[in-house]
Amino acid sequence: MSADQGYDPRTGEPVGVPVPHTGPAELDRICRAATAAAPGLAAMAPAERAGLLRAVAGALGTHADELVALADAETALGPARLAGELTRTRVQLEMFAGVLAEGSYLEAVIDLPDPAAQPAPRPDLRRMLLPVGPVAVYAASNFPFAFSVAGGDTASALAAGCPVVLKAHPGHPGLSARCGQLVAEALAVPGAFAVVHGFEAGAALVQHPAIAAAAFTGSPSGGRALHDLAAARPDPIPFYGELGALNPVVVTAGALAQRADEIVAGFTGSYLLGSGQFCTKPGLLFLPAGHGLGERIAAAVAGASIGPLLAERIKTGYDQTAARLAAVPGVRSVLGDEAAGRRSRLDSPAPAGPGWTAAPALLAVPAPVLVARAGELLRECFGPAALLVEYASGEELLAALATVPGSLAGAVHADVAAEAELVRAVVDALTAMAGRVIVGGWPTGVAVTWAMHHGGPWPATTNPGHTSVGVTAIRRFQRPVVYQNTPEALLPPALRDGNPWRLPRRVNGTLVPA
Amino acid sequence: MSADQGYDPRTGEPVGVPVPHTGPAELDRICRAATAAAPGLAAMAPAERAGLLRAVAGALGTHADELVALADAETALGPARLAGELTRTRVQLEMFAGVLAEGSYLEAVIDLPDPAAQPAPRPDLRRMLLPVGPVAVYAASNFPFAFSVAGGDTASALAAGCPVVLKAHPGHPGLSARCGQLVAEALAVPGAFAVVHGFEAGAALVQHPAIAAAAFTGSPSGGRALHDLAAARPDPIPFYGELGALNPVVVTAGALAQRADEIVAGFTGSYLLGSGQFCTKPGLLFLPAGHGLGERIAAAVAGASIGPLLAERIKTGYDQTAARLAAVPGVRSVLGDEAAGRRSRLDSPAPAGPGWTAAPALLAVPAPVLVARAGELLRECFGPAALLVEYASGEELLAALATVPGSLAGAVHADVAAEAELVRAVVDALTAMAGRVIVGGWPTGVAVTWAMHHGGPWPATTNPGHTSVGVTAIRRFQRPVVYQNTPEALLPPALRDGNPWRLPRRVNGTLVPA
Repeated sequence: MSADQGYDPRTGEPVGVPVPHTGPAELDRICRAATAAAPGLAAMAPAERAGLLRAVAGALGTHADELVALADAETALGPARLAGELTRTRVQLEMFAGVLAEGSYLEAVIDLPDPAAQPAPRPDLRRMLLPVGPVAVYAASNFPFAFSVAGGDTASALAAGCPVVLKAHPGHPGLSARCGQLVAEALAVPGAFAVVHGFEAGAALVQHPAIAAAAFTGSPSGGRALHDLAAARPDPIPFYGELGALNPVVVTAGALAQRADEIVAGFTGSYLLGSGQFCTKPGLLFLPAGHGLGERIAAAVAGASIGPLLAERIKTGYDQTAARLAAVPGVRSVLGDEAAGRRSRLDSPAPAGPGWTAAPALLAVPAPVLVARAGELLRECFGPAALLVEYASGEELLAALATVPGSLAGAVHADVAAEAELVRAVVDALTAMAGRVIVGGWPTGVAVTWAMHHGGPWPATTNPGHTSVGVTAIRRFQRPVVYQNTPEALLPPALRDGNPWRLPRRVNGTLVPA
Repeated sequence: MSADQGYDPRTGEPVGVPVPHTGPAELDRICRAATAAAPGLAAMAPAERAGLLRAVAGALGTHADELVALADAETALGPARLAGELTRTRVQLEMFAGVLAEGSYLEAVIDLPDPAAQPAPRPDLRRMLLPVGPVAVYAASNFPFAFSVAGGDTASALAAGCPVVLKAHPGHPGLSARCGQLVAEALAVPGAFAVVHGFEAGAALVQHPAIAAAAFTGSPSGGRALHDLAAARPDPIPFYGELGALNPVVVTAGALAQRADEIVAGFTGSYLLGSGQFCTKPGLLFLPAGHGLGERIAAAVAGASIGPLLAERIKTGYDQTAARLAAVPGVRSVLGDEAAGRRSRLDSPAPAGPGWTAAPALLAVPAPVLVARAGELLRECFGPAALLVEYASGEELLAALATVPGSLAGAVHADVAAEAELVRAVVDALTAMAGRVIVGGWPTGVAVTWAMHHGGPWPATTNPGHTSVGVTAIRRFQRPVVYQNTPEALLPPALRDGNPWRLPRRVNGTLVPA
């Protein structure tokens, strides 16, 4: 195959014209152009780079109808959801424009000379963060705007001052090509942004000498493969992969007594959102044994409208993984057993449907079985599947929770006042394994703010110290430099005595707001 | 070999008793104890952990005479240097105690709910940094205090709240064992700190499931091997290696005209400091062609007192590398040719001396030869060797500088006012390849402060975004977590409404000093 072809998931039929894969010579040309663009982008005043980000946001807004239609044709995620996602993508770009204006992202720190310092006199030292250089970004399938061409990784890398070479996801090639044109035109900085297509171009990109860092959102296998290529380079580069997660949600007896209906509706909505193709999908719902929610959740699932999956490969993978989970001894199918007749059993062939529609799955297992068969059961099933884990005691709950691998998020629904001790233990367990801890809510929905963290211990990400959403996502693409005894005229503006950029800075250890 | 034996570099004779290597069962026990200690360390208030750091600093002070004597017996670095280094090590621990008291290191960020946020209402979000978990630290040979058992990596990991398992350097096993006892006793937290010995224990340590991150200071080959093991784990962990550097120093014609004597003395002192065994040694000195400094530097070198190298392996490696560099066509030996008779030629066998004394080397090469033979010449030679690079023009200088790989530091000596354009170009080139840029100084000597950055692009380090010296070294051992809609009672103190720890925090995007 030498081109990416888009498909309509509703029908499985091709849409749009094939987008040719990027050959080695073209990839090399693009990477060299990125290298050439890097010093200019880095040297821009933050306000000027903020203008570039706003220009990209503006272009997305101007072309919103066209882009939403293109995206819907290739992803079937629906115009409403896609329009919201496009807004979020613009908000994200504008947020980083604001971050540049605020200036803390440069982490300017000045230590004035101290001849009395021990064990030796201290010179004049002035530190700030610089862009690392050209960044490779690997787009995801499930957020064709927010985690794709003009998404959070691109926005944060450009904000940092890094040129971006974006590897398009083959699930929406037409949209990717069009967004790429719009971003490059809006930036109007030659070499600052380009889109490449094709598996081989993607593998070559992370190994190209011009690339200084890489960011990825996608599957554990794809992320691991690129991580390994980045680490094996003659000059290893930082690789920031967000690989998805199980995102456990714990429901206590107290919560169940207080608001079972709300929990049924909230869980069903969250796990089926985007047909279950969210990296923050609650894949595990811990319920007290004898919860009696099976039929109610099954009814809610039966009543939900679930769109087709994004790609044939995703549907195939989903069917296989869901069937494998259902076949583990001790696992029962809640929909199959308790809502019989509404759908075929999971271990029978999936019902024939138009395009890449998939049958939802809801499995249940006693907590001790989860512990005993953790290797088989604790695997992400990308699509409309979830596993109810039924615990007979707080001890069973905590033991099962301790086996869950690193996740992007985890949540607890409880009667916080009446169950204080248990809730504290659950929050501690979630804090140990997740990047985001939610009380009384659901993991889907990731706000784009200063405090947001969208990351977590392996296998949620390849680096627990960083986030791909929120202001601090910019840090992935910066490196510190310190100037020692450097005359004013040779210092970057961020570090000059007069603070011409009016940055918040730390001087002799004390934070000085702008 | 099943034990580390210390040697006196002055004589090559054994000193002290052999320290047994750590077997697999003992390593596992130590790592499990670290895991068990982690929650307690993490839960401590910053002031309490600061007390632990001060206790370690105090123990080093109380036992200073004993430790300096032990260190001198195993390293021959001399009591004066070692006493200064021990002071620096204590200052470093105390600095991190101050960092804990100041509180910015927690990066507390609070976004209050915003029902009007686009594209969706914003929940209450509160982010902070938590310790990553048990950390493996690999000690260096050349700073038996500051980059060894109680050195900067240990101090910053403990400050972050991480237990430390320290792999001792085999060059000073007796000192390492004794320091390990003192640190563990001073901490008085079971499992929080342990020292392991032996190559195999070191390789197993970075692969142990309990270890969440690793820090290393040492050779490129050792660092690369451990980096690769960390990256190849089933669950890759962050690996922060500081692998040394060439640290180019540029001298312009203007500087030469103004202060040649100062440059000769400064360079000779810097490159021979610690017998050239500094990772910040200026390994490359760029001089205008026809500089006429050869005899003066040779005389300064001849007059310098150079101690023995730290280990037999280092001496062997030094002799081989220096001879290999000298044999590259186009390279001449400044000491051999211009200071003939003062020492034997580099390509003849090294002079027989007591212990691991090595002959200094000073080579010279025209800048175009450096460019043409970059692969052979741009290698760190650990020990008292340096390469003078003679440039005929600013273009030659900048072309040669562009071939120098990532370094910890770079410096320029110039007539800043009269040579503004050239100096600007040199500072830009150094900024692109180094973590620290020095004007009018030498790279040896790394202050321990808020602004310090001791890092740089590969191969200076395995991760250009982080430092192993200075306040921000603590970040390597932290990971963010965000709490969403979490009731006050379940929040960590750092994120509670009343700000009980009086931290500087960011609230709704605005920095609020404590």
